[in-house]
Amino acid sequence: MKIYAVGLGPGDVSYMIPEAREVIRSCDTVVGYTVYIDLISDLLAGKELISTGMTAEVERCEAAVAEALRGKQVCVVSSGDAGIYGMASLLYEAAEPYPALEVEVVPGITAAAAAAAILGSPLSNDFAVISLSDLMTPWEVIERRLDAVSAADMVTCLYNPRSKKRCDYLEKAAAIALRHKPPTTNCGYVRNAFRDTGSEACLCTLADLATADVDMFTTVIIGNADTRVIHGKLVCARGYRL
Amino acid sequence: MKIYAVGLGPGDVSYMIPEAREVIRSCDTVVGYTVYIDLISDLLAGKELISTGMTAEVERCEAAVAEALRGKQVCVVSSGDAGIYGMASLLYEAAEPYPALEVEVVPGITAAAAAAAILGSPLSNDFAVISLSDLMTPWEVIERRLDAVSAADMVTCLYNPRSKKRCDYLEKAAAIALRHKPPTTNCGYVRNAFRDTGSEACLCTLADLATADVDMFTTVIIGNADTRVIHGKLVCARGYRL
Repeated sequence: MKIYAVGLGPGDVSYMIPEAREVIRSCDTVVGYTVYIDLISDLLAGKELISTGMTAEVERCEAAVAEALRGKQVCVVSSGDAGIYGMASLLYEAAEPYPALEVEVVPGITAAAAAAAILGSPLSNDFAVISLSDLMTPWEVIERRLDAVSAADMVTCLYNPRSKKRCDYLEKAAAIALRHKPPTTNCGYVRNAFRDTGSEACLCTLADLATADVDMFTTVIIGNADTRVIHGKLVCARGYRL
Repeated sequence: MKIYAVGLGPGDVSYMIPEAREVIRSCDTVVGYTVYIDLISDLLAGKELISTGMTAEVERCEAAVAEALRGKQVCVVSSGDAGIYGMASLLYEAAEPYPALEVEVVPGITAAAAAAAILGSPLSNDFAVISLSDLMTPWEVIERRLDAVSAADMVTCLYNPRSKKRCDYLEKAAAIALRHKPPTTNCGYVRNAFRDTGSEACLCTLADLATADVDMFTTVIIGNADTRVIHGKLVCARGYRL
């Protein structure tokens, strides 16, 4: 028996890999957050849908496992990459009591890659990916990671930079980066990267990042000493001599 | 005028996004490293190919820009994601003297995402991506980054873990991680993730990583305190309560 964790990519179907479409097509049951299910409505005819709100991740995975144990072909869908802040790890944990149930992950274009492509090429050298959501990771750990990667002058990609409950987290993150990086450091952020609703992208300096207009659908990239702006795009130069 | 940097994904066409195929199809000229060009041979009928060896990145980008300035529709292809250790940043630099020439990046499944999907779900929380190649980044900087992300207990994905000239770099990287992470830390590595030749995946502990059989086509993932092995797969548990 197999159960799939499938990454849908950023939203536009042109950015979803063919393997994801094939796996979804092959399944009897598709499980996911309501908004993500809507992204793939053209693939869902005749399938059973188990669709829940944002915070019901555990219930979604347990429902998916129960369906698979009943003999159904099941996939759990996430936006972006199912293995990067997606449902894959939770699905492995939910399936752990059933060794006969094999989990397979289908990757997708994660928000870091989508935002980077829209902004220019800011992730062309070493980088870190850090979520500012402290629902699952203590804020002290997040702060320690932000401090470490900033001190090592790594480009840093921030997921979940702000929510209603955590309205000052991006401000705090920017302040930590400013301990080590100059205020002129080039940064950028993208809302709704490659969604059919259209992306909004902005460049700014690290000094201005704290007051950037971001929300939970925004991905933020903090540059490093090699990050330049070339004709309005954010580029991490890799040091080739031209 | 537009010139494209296109990510081909890991190799298998089922893992290349439709947008990449469309852009390649629309181009007159396709520029890339010989091995990557071979991956998309079915798309290349009637196109001009500019195909060079591994270390001729600068020449490839300059040739691509020259073709675009002659009025051709041109794309430069990279394996994985064009913006993650790919050709995108170099293309921005090569196109910089020509403001009328717009660079557009088409993302792809990068090796970190491909290797993670094969190993299980090791990148489900914060992580760092670091290349061990010191062709473009001084080794001291790489060491500092490895030390920083290990001290902050971040999962770490290593690109280019070994080459003929740099046969002991993975050993050095593992030794740095061992300053901060216990030798029992779960790790994994994948060679040729999602290539049509077939992937080879292995799990090991951090103590055994130094002697792992890796090459430049291998991606290595060093886990953290939350990284577990579940039924033979590497999983970074996010802390949900099941």
